[in-house]
This record gives sequence, structure tokens and C-alpha cells, in this order.
Amino acid sequence: MSISRLNPVTPGIFSKIQRTVGRANCSRAKEDRVCYAFDATRQQHLPDAVVFPANAEEVSNILQLANRHRFAVIPRGAGSGMSGGSIPVAGGLVMAMTRFARIIKIDMDNMIARVEPGVVTGVFQRAVADKGLFYPPDPSSADFSTLGGNIAECAGGPKAVKYGVTRDYVLGMEVVLATGEIVHTGVQTAKGVVGYDLSRLLIGSEGTLGVVTEITLRLLPLPKSVKTLIAFYDKMETAAETVSEIIRQGLMPRTIEYMDNASIRCVRNYLKMDMPSAVDALLIIEVDGSEAAVQQSAEAVSSLCMAKGALKVDLARTPEAAEDLWRARKSISPALYRLAPDKINEDIVVPRSRIPDMVAKIRELSGRTGLTMVSFGHAGDGNIHFNIMLDKKDSAALEKADAAVDEIFDYTLELGGTISGEHGIGISKAPYMKKEVPPQMMALMKRIKKAFDPAGILNPGKMNL
Amino acid sequence: MSISRLNPVTPGIFSKIQRTVGRANCSRAKEDRVCYAFDATRQQHLPDAVVFPANAEEVSNILQLANRHRFAVIPRGAGSGMSGGSIPVAGGLVMAMTRFARIIKIDMDNMIARVEPGVVTGVFQRAVADKGLFYPPDPSSADFSTLGGNIAECAGGPKAVKYGVTRDYVLGMEVVLATGEIVHTGVQTAKGVVGYDLSRLLIGSEGTLGVVTEITLRLLPLPKSVKTLIAFYDKMETAAETVSEIIRQGLMPRTIEYMDNASIRCVRNYLKMDMPSAVDALLIIEVDGSEAAVQQSAEAVSSLCMAKGALKVDLARTPEAAEDLWRARKSISPALYRLAPDKINEDIVVPRSRIPDMVAKIRELSGRTGLTMVSFGHAGDGNIHFNIMLDKKDSAALEKADAAVDEIFDYTLELGGTISGEHGIGISKAPYMKKEVPPQMMALMKRIKKAFDPAGILNPGKMNL
Repeated sequence: MSISRLNPVTPGIFSKIQRTVGRANCSRAKEDRVCYAFDATRQQHLPDAVVFPANAEEVSNILQLANRHRFAVIPRGAGSGMSGGSIPVAGGLVMAMTRFARIIKIDMDNMIARVEPGVVTGVFQRAVADKGLFYPPDPSSADFSTLGGNIAECAGGPKAVKYGVTRDYVLGMEVVLATGEIVHTGVQTAKGVVGYDLSRLLIGSEGTLGVVTEITLRLLPLPKSVKTLIAFYDKMETAAETVSEIIRQGLMPRTIEYMDNASIRCVRNYLKMDMPSAVDALLIIEVDGSEAAVQQSAEAVSSLCMAKGALKVDLARTPEAAEDLWRARKSISPALYRLAPDKINEDIVVPRSRIPDMVAKIRELSGRTGLTMVSFGHAGDGNIHFNIMLDKKDSAALEKADAAVDEIFDYTLELGGTISGEHGIGISKAPYMKKEVPPQMMALMKRIKKAFDPAGILNPGKMNL
Repeated sequence: MSISRLNPVTPGIFSKIQRTVGRANCSRAKEDRVCYAFDATRQQHLPDAVVFPANAEEVSNILQLANRHRFAVIPRGAGSGMSGGSIPVAGGLVMAMTRFARIIKIDMDNMIARVEPGVVTGVFQRAVADKGLFYPPDPSSADFSTLGGNIAECAGGPKAVKYGVTRDYVLGMEVVLATGEIVHTGVQTAKGVVGYDLSRLLIGSEGTLGVVTEITLRLLPLPKSVKTLIAFYDKMETAAETVSEIIRQGLMPRTIEYMDNASIRCVRNYLKMDMPSAVDALLIIEVDGSEAAVQQSAEAVSSLCMAKGALKVDLARTPEAAEDLWRARKSISPALYRLAPDKINEDIVVPRSRIPDMVAKIRELSGRTGLTMVSFGHAGDGNIHFNIMLDKKDSAALEKADAAVDEIFDYTLELGGTISGEHGIGISKAPYMKKEVPPQMMALMKRIKKAFDPAGILNPGKMNL
């Protein structure tokens, strides 16, 4: 669907939007448009207007209007996405889901919750934890990202190695289709196989197929006990080999995160602990389960780390100490700007056993190009957040960086990996998507897009669709 | 897509099929066609011919031929489906995936396996267990059903309450699209979000969108310890309430199966154990994990069952005793024919806390109609296999049974449930699908079907598509 065939939100259309949601719930003032122009990629594009619908009916009315007048609608959660998924590249109307902020029900008997998409992930995690329940998806942005945004990108986070990603917790949804129909996908129960699995098709579709207005999520019992370990290494390669060995032994921690030397330096202030002076990399490993099982696993992991060459393994003695560690881990991404004004940020996944190969590749590439490269991430999933820190005004550096990214993506695919594990494609990864998705699959995805959104009004220009 | 627009497999087309796969690998002899006319529903329809392709290229060639000559192709695993998904209702060519029977690789380092779709589920389960790994999906048909068939219907089984269903273990697939292109969906890694999630769209699509030719499956470490408990009750309602309480307490067994009085009577010979004479229902509860955790959970479950009114709780003392129990459980479905020559077999799911309501409803309905009703199933998921046993030649009984099914479905939906948890829609549940799926969703599913299969050649007449 060509973006160029879409129309701007004219004053006449804007009046209709005002009549739909009320004057207080939409704006085309420059100061409001600026607030909804960007996401965590620091790219930006001004929308023509912003709307804050209150319910599915209003969403439906606006989408019907958009089909009639052919203007773009860009659904948006907190704008914390890492691939430009919510940036209004074609202008149009940003639909901010801020007012869909209710936790409708936490059903302890069935271990499910009904929520609206604008609920902040962290707020929801804490609300269910208060009732002894557990919502495992946990993107680093959890303190501000929304459940709807998590669904749009299929967010993951550190606990995915044991518990899976957002996709694995969505049972059903209320969705306003691009054409305006309010429908329900999936089920409110533990199982269901009636018709095509539209819920999973919508998850990770980056707001290109429909607007989610309510979500039914599966919950787990809150693990009785959690222990957080930190293992220090004098070589990144040794840490990477340890990860493979933990998986091979079937120890199943709930997280296996790693930080390389540069990441550690960036968040050193948060890491309130004595580190061996020779440290080059570290692993944060968390085990959970019953008291007895956790004690056993923590000991097994600790012994394995030492046996595989760790300098030292520490146990976070208190919940506060573990929280400090996680605060440090979650701060890496923003803290990287201490190294350079700009960041090229990738989200590759390789088979877990190939992490040592990728680590070696990054080291070699950094040496060869002289570029500052930082990597950290969800080692247990083989999911590496690989960053090049640079000044984009330095065109020679930028050119080298682009070539390096290209080389990393090619090597990722050569190892049997994928170019995005949890950040999505949006616009940032769109130029590389064809490396992984051949033309006949792109053509099929475009036919699916058209089956949902014949006029192409919903979040145009994303994922090359 | 109207079935009537499709053509038969003429002698001319059959010659082309012979040239594609070789004379030994296709047939239109009556005796072969009869073998591929039916599934576990006991419904049947003769295909025009049967083909046994050897690889994705042959599948592609046949699908291209089908598009050119507009004949139906019906992919088939073991034909053990419970909803008629593989019955060639429109005639055409049955594509038996029997020769896709290789376990290509079990990768212990990354805990994944690459398999072909014709591999029998039980064979695969044992092959990975031999290497200390675990494939949890476990339909009752596991000893003969295939992994490809499990994907087509999104099979579940008793361990879904803790471990999820087939959908949760498929990372990626090689698929021949209805239009003949050989493509790869998903990833070979733990995570991936590149483009629309076509893997999950294909899972449960009953062979209407593509033919799976290779599968990458996620595996888990084999649990160190398993304990199997059996709890006897003098009232089905008490058993049902116990299930809700187990979930509410967050005990997370890997299975919570139940059998009602009639199921117990049917498989009594297999149940080599002393049962209290007053038994009306039983629960089979299995816990797994580390030695220590399992001991703890088994004790907690056992105490809870007794506290909630069980007559007796037994622990299977040996693996053989546990196997006997599972053999009995898996024999219920075929053994029901002891009660009557015909079976109407449903697969409803209700929120777990509403199982007692559904059990009461079934009892009331059985009393009111005088029909023999049997229920058993995956109580932990709220997934009830509800059966009416009758002689279909007795038209008065049949009419009452149809009305009873209708009433049960309406009540299921009223409770917030779904009409199929793991058996799929196929043809048996197609008349009821509209109760759950409104017209605008059916229209969308038809557009998706058309995006994959414009000529409508792949498994026509299923799921009302």
C-alpha cells in the first residue's frame, strides 16, 4: 500500500474527530504533535493530529472515518519502542491509547486478567504480584511501556529464557479491525482452537492490522523463591561458553543476562558491588521455584560458573541488592549515550550455542573498524543487544557503522539466527528485513495486510508493508 | 471458496502426478482410496486418488498442478483427528505425509529439534527423552498421531495445564504454500519477531493454508522427577471443586485429569487398583520438577484433595503403575463404544472455576433427556471431553442428542468458554462455529484463506472456509 495515496488530516476531518471524541480529547496544536512524533529510536516525524479515544466504539468511529477519508492512523502506547514502530512516518493521526488504562479484573480462580492496552507493564506486574500472581514478560522499558505496545512488538525481556514472551501470555483480545469492526479474538480460557489464530497473528504486527482495546492475559503463580547470582569473567568468551553449558545441562534459570566490558563501565555507578579488577564481562543469573529447588539450582549454577572459569560468583543477599542489579541492567541502554552522542542499536538472536562465535565476531569487527561496540542482553535466548556508539555527524564513522551492521546481520543469518528478537522491524530494521524474508513471503504478508486493511490506513510504512 | 468449483483428479491429471512422484508413490485403486477416506470421527468420504510425496519439491509440484487443474489437495498425517479435518469431503487428492518420517536432528546444545511432519508424536517424545529432553505436547493419540497432524489441529493433551500446547513448541517451519512456493516461517532460535507471525497462523489452520514439510521444535530439559497421584471421589462435583482449589492455590501440577463414573466403568479393566466402592469420579494429578520440589508438591496436592473431600488418594508407586494409569486414561475414548455403537464427541473448554457448573449441567441434562453422557478430560485447563453415547439409527435419540449438544455449547459460551479446546473444527464442529465466531470474523478468515490459497484447492470445506 503506497503511503503517498493517503491524505492529510484536514481541518474538516479534524472537526469530525472532535465530534467523535470531544474537543478535550484531540489536538492539532504543534506542542501536542511534537510530543507524539518520536519513540525510543530518537527518530521523529510530526503527525497531523493526535486523538485520545476512550473506548472501542470511538476507536471504531475514527477508523471508519479514516477509511472514508483515507488518512493514516498510528496507534501508540508509551512510545518506548526501539524500532520506530509508532512513529507517524506518513503523518496522519496518532491514536494515543493513554485512556485505556484500566486493569479490569484480576481473576485469581482462573489465573487470568482482563486489562486495557494502555496499562503500564510494570504497574500490571505489581498489581498481580500483590495477589500472589506472576506476569513474566518484562521488557527493560516495563516502568513506562504499555501492555498494548508490548503486544504490538511482542516484547520479551530477561525472563523469556524460562517463561517465554508476550505472545505466550495473551489468551484473547478485543480488537478494532482496520476496517472498524469491533471483534474478539482467541479465548478467555486456557485453550482454544476455533478458526485461525488471529490473536497470534496480531501479536507482533506493530499496529498494522488492528487496534487492541482489551486484552485477556494468562498469569502464573508467583514463584515462592528467587535467587539472583552475578558471575564475573575476565574474558567475554568464557562467559559466553558458560551460557551454553548452563543450557546444555538443563538447569533452566529464569534469566541469563550478560554485559560486556563497555556495558559494565556505563552502569558501574549502579553496580554497588566489589568487582574483580580484571573483569571483562559478567552474567546475571536468576533461578526461581520452591525454596528447596532454588537453593539447589543456585548452588548448581554457581559451581558450574566457577568450573567454567568465572573469577567470582556473588549471590545478591537481599531483594534490594537484586533490585540494584536489575536497575543497573535496565539502565544500560540509556547509559550508553555516555560513550557517544548516537547509537545504532540492534537486537539479533543466534542459536544459544553460537553466542561465543558472535561475541568473537563483534570483538574482531570492533578491532578492525575502530568503532565502539557494546553488547549485552538475554544470553539465555541467544538474544544480543548489539550497539555501535558513534557521532552520526562523522560521516566516515557512520559509513563504517552501516557496513558493520550489514556484516553482523549476514553473520547472524549464517549462524541460523534472526535480525530481531524482541524490538520488531518498524522503520529502523525495515531496510534489512529482505535479508531474512524472501520476496514471496513479503508478498504473502502484503496480501494478509490487505485482507485486514484494504485502504492501508493503519500504521503505514512499517515492516515494509 | 465453493467446493463445487473444484475438479476431480482425472486420469490425465493422475498421469502427471505419477510422473511427479513415481508410480509406486501414488494410487487411485479403490482399496487405497478407502484407507484414506476416514479419520477418528468414523465419518468418511472417498478421495479420487492418494499421493505419497517424498520432499518439499514434490509437494510444491503437486500443489502447482492442483492450482492449474483446480483439484482439491487434502494433507493428511495419521488420520487420527477428532473433527474430520483430514476427510476429503470434496474428493480430490489425499496427500499422505507418511514418507516425511525423519527426525533430522536433536540439538542438545540449543534444546531444539528439526523433524519432518510424518514423525509419530510418541516416537519423537521417546527419542528426545533418551537424550534427557522433553517434548510436552501429548495428545491421547500420541502413539499413532503425527507431529504434522498435531500442528494442523494444535493438539494439546494432559500436560497443557503446565506446559501449554503444540503452538508453544513450534519455533519455525518449512511450508509449501497453497500456491506452491516453498518458504520458511519463524526462526530456529528461542525468539524472533521479523514480520507477521505466520507460524502461529498456520498452527491450527487444519491444512487449509499450506503443507508443512519440516518443523523446528523447542524442547525442555526432562524433569528430574515425576509423581502420579490418583484421587477418588464419591461425587463428581467434589472432584470438580478440588480442581479449582488446586489452581487457586497455585500448586501447578503438570496434569489434572478427571474421569466421571461412566469413563471409569469403561476402562475399569485397565485400572489395576483397588477403588473405593462408592467412587463416582477420579482425578489423576501429576507433579514434576526436582526431587525435593516434587515430594513437596505431591504432599501438598494429596492433603488438599483429602481436605476437599476425596475418599482416598493413592500414589503410583512405580513408573509401571503410573503407565497403567495413563494407558487407562488414554483408552477412554475408544473404550466408550462399549456403551453404545455411536458417539457424539465434544471438546469444550470453560474457565477452570466453572467446571463444577458444567459438571452439574451435564448431570442435569443427562437426567432430563435420558441420554448416556460421559465426560472426562483435562480438568486443569477446563477442557472437557463431553460425549453422548447412542445408536444413531435411533432417530429420536439422535434428535435429543443434537439438541443437548446445542444446549451444552450455548452454556459453554455463556460461561465464557470455547467450543473446541484441542480437537479443532474440521467438519464435525463446523455447524456450531458460528455460535462463537461472528460473521465479520468469518469474513476476515475467508480473506486470509484467499490470501494464501486463491484457488481454494487446499483442504476445502473445513472450518466453514
